[in-house]
Amino acid sequence: MIKKVLVANRGEIAVRIIRACKELNIETVAVYSQADKESLHVQLADEAYCIGPNAPKDSYLSYTNMISVATLTGCDAVHPGYGFLSENADFAEMCEECKLIFIGPTSEAISKMGIKDVAKQTMKNADVPVVPGSNGVIDRVEDGVKIANDIGYPVLIKATAGGGGKGIRVARNEEELRHGITITQQEADTSFGNSGVYIEKYIENFRHVEIQVLADEHGHVIHLGERDCTIQRRLQKLLEESPSPALDEAKRQEMGMAAVRAARAVNYRGAGTIEFIYEPNGSFYFMEMNTRIQVEHGVTEEVTGVDLVKEQLRIASGEPLSVTQADIQLQGHAIECRINAEDSEKNFMPSCGRVETYLAPGGPGVRVDSAAYQGYFIPPYYDSMVSKVIAYGKTREDAIATMQRALGEYVIEGIKTTIPFHLRLLQHPVFESGKFNTKFLEKYPLNEQS
Amino acid sequence: MIKKVLVANRGEIAVRIIRACKELNIETVAVYSQADKESLHVQLADEAYCIGPNAPKDSYLSYTNMISVATLTGCDAVHPGYGFLSENADFAEMCEECKLIFIGPTSEAISKMGIKDVAKQTMKNADVPVVPGSNGVIDRVEDGVKIANDIGYPVLIKATAGGGGKGIRVARNEEELRHGITITQQEADTSFGNSGVYIEKYIENFRHVEIQVLADEHGHVIHLGERDCTIQRRLQKLLEESPSPALDEAKRQEMGMAAVRAARAVNYRGAGTIEFIYEPNGSFYFMEMNTRIQVEHGVTEEVTGVDLVKEQLRIASGEPLSVTQADIQLQGHAIECRINAEDSEKNFMPSCGRVETYLAPGGPGVRVDSAAYQGYFIPPYYDSMVSKVIAYGKTREDAIATMQRALGEYVIEGIKTTIPFHLRLLQHPVFESGKFNTKFLEKYPLNEQS
Repeated sequence: MIKKVLVANRGEIAVRIIRACKELNIETVAVYSQADKESLHVQLADEAYCIGPNAPKDSYLSYTNMISVATLTGCDAVHPGYGFLSENADFAEMCEECKLIFIGPTSEAISKMGIKDVAKQTMKNADVPVVPGSNGVIDRVEDGVKIANDIGYPVLIKATAGGGGKGIRVARNEEELRHGITITQQEADTSFGNSGVYIEKYIENFRHVEIQVLADEHGHVIHLGERDCTIQRRLQKLLEESPSPALDEAKRQEMGMAAVRAARAVNYRGAGTIEFIYEPNGSFYFMEMNTRIQVEHGVTEEVTGVDLVKEQLRIASGEPLSVTQADIQLQGHAIECRINAEDSEKNFMPSCGRVETYLAPGGPGVRVDSAAYQGYFIPPYYDSMVSKVIAYGKTREDAIATMQRALGEYVIEGIKTTIPFHLRLLQHPVFESGKFNTKFLEKYPLNEQS
Repeated sequence: MIKKVLVANRGEIAVRIIRACKELNIETVAVYSQADKESLHVQLADEAYCIGPNAPKDSYLSYTNMISVATLTGCDAVHPGYGFLSENADFAEMCEECKLIFIGPTSEAISKMGIKDVAKQTMKNADVPVVPGSNGVIDRVEDGVKIANDIGYPVLIKATAGGGGKGIRVARNEEELRHGITITQQEADTSFGNSGVYIEKYIENFRHVEIQVLADEHGHVIHLGERDCTIQRRLQKLLEESPSPALDEAKRQEMGMAAVRAARAVNYRGAGTIEFIYEPNGSFYFMEMNTRIQVEHGVTEEVTGVDLVKEQLRIASGEPLSVTQADIQLQGHAIECRINAEDSEKNFMPSCGRVETYLAPGGPGVRVDSAAYQGYFIPPYYDSMVSKVIAYGKTREDAIATMQRALGEYVIEGIKTTIPFHLRLLQHPVFESGKFNTKFLEKYPLNEQS
């Protein structure tokens, strides 16, 4: 078994990892930037070392600093958490070279899933549904028109080198498509030095449904049901739940088996998530794979009873999974609200500063994953999430009631948080109905007035 | 359904009741003594009223003040919590007379179970095992000797009017018995004005195992498995768990059915607990019935998934139980540690005062039921419990590991607490083995030095 872990992250996920290690009797080493000296993860770990100044590139993203601390403190493994270095194949490879266990998949699997074209083709080969479109880059405008006629409008024109909302364009008819291909090629050439574009069916009305998988080094790959992360604002997830209000057991198994095929296709190891576009008619398409633990992993833990971070640690130690596919039965309903230090009345503007008063909710059905405490100063250099509240109940209705109660008693003073936003969301009749898509917040912005 | 509840209690159980009410959309009215003005239950309730000075007899034990507040604020029900007025048949009767729903059994059932002799006889009639002994009061010393010879030494000589460790004496042979009966009769006459004594087998090596029951007004009575409360200091429970390390499923059902018979024997309504003496050979005997919600109810909630306080509210509203006996399957293992404001290094001396720093544990498998917060002043007038930490895991070993982790990160500064004591208890090999009896803490006092 792993004996000592470098926790290569900060905030609540660093705390989460330390908690799992403590329960498994694994020693922990925390790292922190100058801004994070007073952080909870620093206080909870067995040892803690400053690895650089505030800017992430000089601290939490510094491969060499991380590896140095791990080596000097005698760690045998590195847990990257999410974000930062968690999906960085080069860092994973460097760990491998330095004989440190990277708690995640191989650098090869990270690479294969990190490059969108390659990932899509790998999935197609593994019989995982992908969004219909061209097989890679199109050479001529006429090829694009032919494909669009086959798959039907609207379509997306996407630059292979694009990403983050850049190099992407919708076409609703042939005229827009012809024009769009030319323009996108030119823009992509200018912006990315690569004019390659491809065509994909544009799916407008969908839910974000993802499947959690676990894979060990002994050939076991299982899925742990879905998380529904449809409630998003500008592609940022704000509330996640499991099970999805849209899936039945047959669909769950169908998507679950597709996710297992996806993981097997890249010889996956560890905890991972296959994100799918899910259409109201039950069609689903591979979106991407996250080769790490996710922010929202807790809702899966609540409905399956499996501690995913402990499984990660066991898998990385070379042990087989502690559960089989037959053990996984979703029980009850779990909802997570991400509480951010943002002013939801002012366009979600970040609201850093000192937490003057703090009291987390408690009682039955409430789990809080947070690194906040009374007197903690939330620094402006990192993401704005201060807490994840997870409510569990027998039914979705019960979980919503518990979440409302929990958020209603959560005291965080001194900064603005998204708690009032979430309280409005939880009582919205369309949210309550469970029938919504990723455009929910565009349609219902849930401003204080609305 | 009940619309508005007077919460006739304070501290964590008042908070617990308010939480359940909020999740069921029931309005709440808190009451508080002058010392409890800043209490969390006051802050969380919809309304709050001062009912008197610090002394319990003038505030939390004042029938008339409670009833007045309930009536004036338009409550339709009163939840007594535990302690204070919760097992007071006169108060329950007064509620009945004032057309307030008393959230608990009828005053008649409270009376029947509150008088030890009557309760024992009722149980015997209902075929619930009771500790062997005399049928009620013995008239002559010779009768006592005859009974003791039948049931075997050692025996207990108990004053019928005694209680709380008074009017009770062990006899290990006939000489001690003859002397003891006379002395106890004299003492009882002096102390209680009632010289009646009875004889009972003295069971030295036993576990405290209790069965949770729920009964509605529609004739349904179910049991929810056991809680093992064997870890006690001077009859005060310090740690409870479910399931018991000593029971198997057959014994659970046997004791469960006995508990159901006990409840049916008094036409029970609501949540109640039958406490049993449990011997290593599997024999068990009725000890007493607690006709209220108990401190340790949370461990049952965690392993059964049933919210007992919500069930109380539903039952009091005239609804049938939301679960059947077949729905009750104990899953996983839950442990509760009662964290008291006491100095376990100084003979558990109370340690009141201001909580200077407070941060409750979080993360998976941890539930905290507490009314404490940073800046809260713990008054000296009431019991010393500041928090209940409940850890849940798949196995007892997992739950112990989670509890150790949770208590290790619990920050309560400014007062002394029993957290260090509990941490020593959790790592004691005899505790870990699960094989102990109620004398565990006499044998292993777990002082800092030991």
